[in-house]
Parts: sequence; C-alpha cells; structure tokens
Amino acid sequence: MAAESSYDLVIIRHGQSEANKANIFTGWRDSPLSEAGIAEARAGGRLLREEGFHFDVAFSSLQSRAIKTLWLALEEMDLMWIPVVKHWRLNERHYGALQGKDKIQAVEAFGEAQVHAWRRGYATRPPLVERTSADYPGHDPRYKGLSDADIPRGECLKDVYERVLPYWQAQIVPLLKEKKKVLIAAHGNSLRALVKYLEGLSEDEIEGVNLPTGVPKVYKLNSRFLAETQRFLGDPDEVARRTHTVANQTKRS
Amino acid sequence: MAAESSYDLVIIRHGQSEANKANIFTGWRDSPLSEAGIAEARAGGRLLREEGFHFDVAFSSLQSRAIKTLWLALEEMDLMWIPVVKHWRLNERHYGALQGKDKIQAVEAFGEAQVHAWRRGYATRPPLVERTSADYPGHDPRYKGLSDADIPRGECLKDVYERVLPYWQAQIVPLLKEKKKVLIAAHGNSLRALVKYLEGLSEDEIEGVNLPTGVPKVYKLNSRFLAETQRFLGDPDEVARRTHTVANQTKRS
Repeated sequence: MAAESSYDLVIIRHGQSEANKANIFTGWRDSPLSEAGIAEARAGGRLLREEGFHFDVAFSSLQSRAIKTLWLALEEMDLMWIPVVKHWRLNERHYGALQGKDKIQAVEAFGEAQVHAWRRGYATRPPLVERTSADYPGHDPRYKGLSDADIPRGECLKDVYERVLPYWQAQIVPLLKEKKKVLIAAHGNSLRALVKYLEGLSEDEIEGVNLPTGVPKVYKLNSRFLAETQRFLGDPDEVARRTHTVANQTKRS
Repeated sequence: MAAESSYDLVIIRHGQSEANKANIFTGWRDSPLSEAGIAEARAGGRLLREEGFHFDVAFSSLQSRAIKTLWLALEEMDLMWIPVVKHWRLNERHYGALQGKDKIQAVEAFGEAQVHAWRRGYATRPPLVERTSADYPGHDPRYKGLSDADIPRGECLKDVYERVLPYWQAQIVPLLKEKKKVLIAAHGNSLRALVKYLEGLSEDEIEGVNLPTGVPKVYKLNSRFLAETQRFLGDPDEVARRTHTVANQTKRS
C-alpha cells in the first residue's frame, strides 16, 4: 500500500509523429501522430487500464501530437470525461533554426559533435529564429496570450526546465496535494526536464536519458513531491527498443 | 459584418452512437459513437473549417459520445489546442427506467401515445430509477461531485432546461461577453433545452423540434444573448434526412 504521504503521477511521451518518422527536428511545429504513433498511444492507454489506473486530471501541451496521445489513452481507459488542461509550458523544446531540418542533413552540415551538443547539451541553445520566421511562435494563434519574453526562439533543455518547473509547482503540485491522481502527456524534452527534477538527476545524467514513446512511466512521489519510486509499464524489451530508436535518431542508417 | 453587439455560438449534436443505431433509450448511459457517428462528427468539423470558423473555447458533456464528437470536430479544424470544458449539466436527458430499453419494445409495452408523451412532453417525466439501480448516476465516478439533489433519476425536457440554463448563464454567457467564440457539442435534449431558450420557443414549439446529428447550427446572438440569426451548415437535403431519422426513431420500420 502507498504511504500516507505518497502521491501518484504518470507521464507519457507522445507516440511517433509524422515528423519523427521522417527524422525531422520538429520542436514547436505541429506534426500529427503517425499510424504507428496512434497505435503506441492506444497501447499506452490499454496498459494503464489493464493495471487498473485511474486519474482525476490530465495535462498536455498545446501541440496536437501530445493532445492526441492523451485523448487516445483516455479513450482506452474510459476516462474521456476527466478534466484536461493544455498549456504551452509543457510544449516540446523549441529547436530554433533547426526546426524543419532533417536530422541526418543537420549532422552532415554541422558535424555530429555540434548536433549532438545541440540535442543533448543541457545549456547549449540551437541557432535562434528571427521574429520574422514562420517558426517564431508569435505568429501562431495558439500562442497569442504569451508575453514577448515567454515566446521562445530556440531553447536548450535548461530553458525548457525553467519554463516547465514553475508550471509544475504552480499548477500540478497543488492538485497532487489534494490527492488527485495526475497524468501528463507531453514531449521528449518537456518530460526530460521534469524527470531531471523529480529524480534529482545532474546535467550530465539527464543527457543520457531518453524516454520511449507511448510508454507510461509511473511515479510515486514523496512528501516533497519528488520521485520515491518509478517504473515503466509494459514489456521491458519493448521499452528498450523504443528508447533505442529515439537515441539513434541522428545516426545514419 | 456582425454588429458590435453580436456574439458567436455554434452547437453540434453528437453523431450517431451505437445505442442510437440499436434504437435504444440511452440517456445517461455511455455509448460510443458508431462508425457512422464518427464520420458525421468529422464531417461537421470539416464544414466548420471550410467556412472558416474559429473558436476560442469549447464545451461538452461528461458523456463519451459528445466528447468524441467534439474531439473529432476540433481535430478537423486544427483546433485541438483550445480549452475544452466538460460538465454534467450538458449531459443528455436522463431517461429514467426507460434507459436501456429498445424504443420499439417500449411502444409495444406502453403504447405509442405514452412513449411519445415521455419522449416529447415538455413536463412529462419517465418512470424514475431507484437509487439501487445501475442507472442511478450516483454509482458512476464521473458524477461523484454532484449533490444528491442534483443527481437525476429520470428527467423531462423541463428538468433538463432547468439544469442547462443556469450553466449557460453562469459559465458560457460570461465568455461570450468577452467576445469569445464558443462551440458546444452535446445531446439531442440538452441542446433542445438551449434552443428553446435561445430561440424563444414555446413548450409546444420545442416538442416539434429535432436536431440532426453532427450538423453544426450557427447562431449570431444579440445583446441579450438570444438568437438573432440561426442556420444549419451544409447540404439542406442531408440536414432534412438526418432530422427525419431522429424524428422517426419510435416508428416501426
């Protein structure tokens, strides 16, 4: 049984998107789930249902691939009716001028080390986009409520951490305090930022962490709302396979 | 152009559910959309997109068929990211002891006149369910926040009107006042209650009104938040066909 002071959180990274499939830096661009991604999201929901999970509230980003992943998982769990809160602070990392570029082409143009630094360096920002660029989020109606200072032009993981954490503290922790069971469907990097915080990982440690797509990660949080236990649901071989796929996206095949 | 004091509202009745297809009184039971219902919901969303509609916020009930209709329509419009508010006050009418019964069997058991009165009589309640019944909503976790007095055991359209209108006034009108464009995806009877109010229809007049499934109805509201203009989107023959299908559900075929 869970101790009095433990809290329930599950995170799930969205299933494969069309852009993931094409090996493109997507960031704040909106790319729908691929057929495989839809199947991953449904399978994630089924795993949660089979293990008897219930949630009181769910969170997602403003990006279709995370929202759709959440919707499909909720449908599988017969929990379509729970409140869903969507917020830009849970969005994927903004990939700056790399957005829309093929990952292998980027390696060819800038070299493996530079691209790896942009992908994995905790505080290494990619080249920023200009405010006139189509990749500047200020042109998208979904971000019209953001202040200029909040609109990213290119983020490193540290930037993502610094926008995710205030949201976690202000909007999610209060619900956990009320013993609400929380599900978050989001992105590789917004979830890595949260994982770094919850699991107390160093900047070096988080560099090596890849989250598999569509696999629920189950946390029990302690009285300080930090990870007490964590586990992935489902077949460990499948989890390893999907983690590996993500880790190798810049490798030439 | 819309006058300064006009407000934008679109309502959409959910597409055909599996229970609709089987001609069963569904009420607060949860029945998924049928394949045809999924197609209707997507088509409704496409119509809205093709006519250039944008929404700032959407509402639905706590029932899967309305939520799914909304999700599919939002996906077609590329508006998955807008806030969605789900509330039991937008649920379908609770059909009391008729829930789960085949509509034609009900006619055979009680007579066409009695069933018509239960279906269409503005203030004619169906036989109520006991609190021990599986159809008593107090047993469903999605309704655990409701007071005993709010949990229905069987409703006439007047009862539905009396729970929908306070929600309309308290939660939806304030957003319209802020010039938010509002979409509501709900049910035959929760929307008929709203239509009665918005269009100023008498109890006799609303008796004859059937809403077609999956067809957006577009309102301009005046400064008192009542209908100034209304129209269905799409092919008038198709609207008539779907309205007719709904109106004839208790006819033996």
